[in-house]
Amino acid sequence: MLEDDFIEELKALFPAKKGTIGIGDDCAVIPIDDKTALLITTDALAEGIHFLKEEISPFDLGFKTVAVSVSDIAAMGGQPEHAFLSLALSKEIDNLWLKELVCGIKSASDKWGIALLGGDTIGSKGGIFLNLTLVGKVPLSQIKYRHTAKIGDTICVTENLGDSLGGLKILQNKLKKQETLMRAHLHPEPSIQEGMWLGAQEHVHAMMDLSDGLDCDLKRMLKASKCGAVIDVERLPLSKELCTLAQENNWDPIELALAGGEEYHLLFTTENFDKIKREFFETFGKTLYEIGKVTKENLLYQKNGVSIKSNINSFTHF
Amino acid sequence: MLEDDFIEELKALFPAKKGTIGIGDDCAVIPIDDKTALLITTDALAEGIHFLKEEISPFDLGFKTVAVSVSDIAAMGGQPEHAFLSLALSKEIDNLWLKELVCGIKSASDKWGIALLGGDTIGSKGGIFLNLTLVGKVPLSQIKYRHTAKIGDTICVTENLGDSLGGLKILQNKLKKQETLMRAHLHPEPSIQEGMWLGAQEHVHAMMDLSDGLDCDLKRMLKASKCGAVIDVERLPLSKELCTLAQENNWDPIELALAGGEEYHLLFTTENFDKIKREFFETFGKTLYEIGKVTKENLLYQKNGVSIKSNINSFTHF
Repeated sequence: MLEDDFIEELKALFPAKKGTIGIGDDCAVIPIDDKTALLITTDALAEGIHFLKEEISPFDLGFKTVAVSVSDIAAMGGQPEHAFLSLALSKEIDNLWLKELVCGIKSASDKWGIALLGGDTIGSKGGIFLNLTLVGKVPLSQIKYRHTAKIGDTICVTENLGDSLGGLKILQNKLKKQETLMRAHLHPEPSIQEGMWLGAQEHVHAMMDLSDGLDCDLKRMLKASKCGAVIDVERLPLSKELCTLAQENNWDPIELALAGGEEYHLLFTTENFDKIKREFFETFGKTLYEIGKVTKENLLYQKNGVSIKSNINSFTHF
Repeated sequence: MLEDDFIEELKALFPAKKGTIGIGDDCAVIPIDDKTALLITTDALAEGIHFLKEEISPFDLGFKTVAVSVSDIAAMGGQPEHAFLSLALSKEIDNLWLKELVCGIKSASDKWGIALLGGDTIGSKGGIFLNLTLVGKVPLSQIKYRHTAKIGDTICVTENLGDSLGGLKILQNKLKKQETLMRAHLHPEPSIQEGMWLGAQEHVHAMMDLSDGLDCDLKRMLKASKCGAVIDVERLPLSKELCTLAQENNWDPIELALAGGEEYHLLFTTENFDKIKREFFETFGKTLYEIGKVTKENLLYQKNGVSIKSNINSFTHF
């Protein structure tokens, strides 16, 4: 069964309680009073699927375990607060490796003001598993969802696309390591301040994080919002490092940008891009990238105004 | 590193935020207003460690995944509300198995009024992993902790001890299956109503659930409460089924009762056992078992008033 189909089945089987929002967005939403809601998200990482132990330092693995969930909180405009970590470790793991993993978790927790409040440590006969549940808070008025994109909205992303996939492909193909791309893959830094700021803008309609690639995640947003989009592939922001890697290996950088998962940056739609872009720049000194428009139906990729057929293999980790 | 040592290290490294209680009890406690706190717990189950796929039905596995965490909420006097499930599945898992697993989760969720609000589904190259994070609620005045046992308290348990270990030993030794013991091991039913009721009794001082065996868990309670205990091993409640199994296999039933993990019933201390026992019986029609007293220091096991040396191997799952 495909993951999205399985999630749909669960969603039908497990309705959320009145007032709460359950399966189907980056986080669950549980209002705790008239003004505030909890955001809760959970993410699992498995050895051999999401990471190769010999290719990521335990510090980066710990950091990334936290970052992945922080990104989900950011995607709904919230602030992370409390974390719960489950660790399944095989007997071969030594204390030094474990200490560095904990250092990476500590570094990320301190960076984003998170307290680790609990967890579970178990043995494993099949490699390392990490699971993080992250609890955050958000003003009810500032929550952004996937299902609220409106026809005519501008579609935007906050960072270059495809860098993390570039880093992954370097590992998979044993190419010469390039620092920017490796860092994007091994040490992602989610846009938590940017997410909170975008959450507070009423002109921002829908938002989510890019964890499975623009093509896959945008389709999820459009399906939830019951609309379509036209994406101008020439506007997809690409780092020069990704372009160089693509050129050297005869890969299409556009395909990398569309397929590239594990970005942990933000995808959002807005009815007033110019204002948002200007104020975002004033606040963060960084630009926002306009990549297309929300339409009534279908997802079209265009190059020079002409529809192209994309040939994307959905992102799979390892 | 031993699990308890690792948890102590994490506790020192990750202090809880002001007002919250983090690592070290059955659940974390996060107050949300003057009267109410969230209880949050997370538990992981790994194939080959906590269960053997060929020895537990997917329905029971799903049910037990929920039950394990419900027990932690019960142990602090709370009521479970929202769950987050992570599932790591290998490719061999077929849709029918998955459907039955989900049915077990659904059955337990419905039984205890829990809404599944989110999760993560990932691949696994090393067997099945399940992780459940459970969020509950409790009136601040009714939270029971491990660290609040008082010298002179009576130590009590709510159910027979060792039945789950009996079931596990039947599986491990390929003995003839005995229904009560198999059910205790494969389909535990935590004492959620009893936990809420005991939480509301001011004469109950400390409480926790029995997940790693009376010997191990009582030591944790005594360490947290900075006191000792005398346990009268002849008062440990034993089912006739466990006694029969022990006799047939020349095992010491007392050792089974002390070592037996995965009970998911309650251990608590009270300054007024007679009153609690009487009112508990009036409410639930069930008896409570007095097994010893809290003392100033050391844990002693006594038989006929004479100290005995126990020879317990700490509980390990498989």
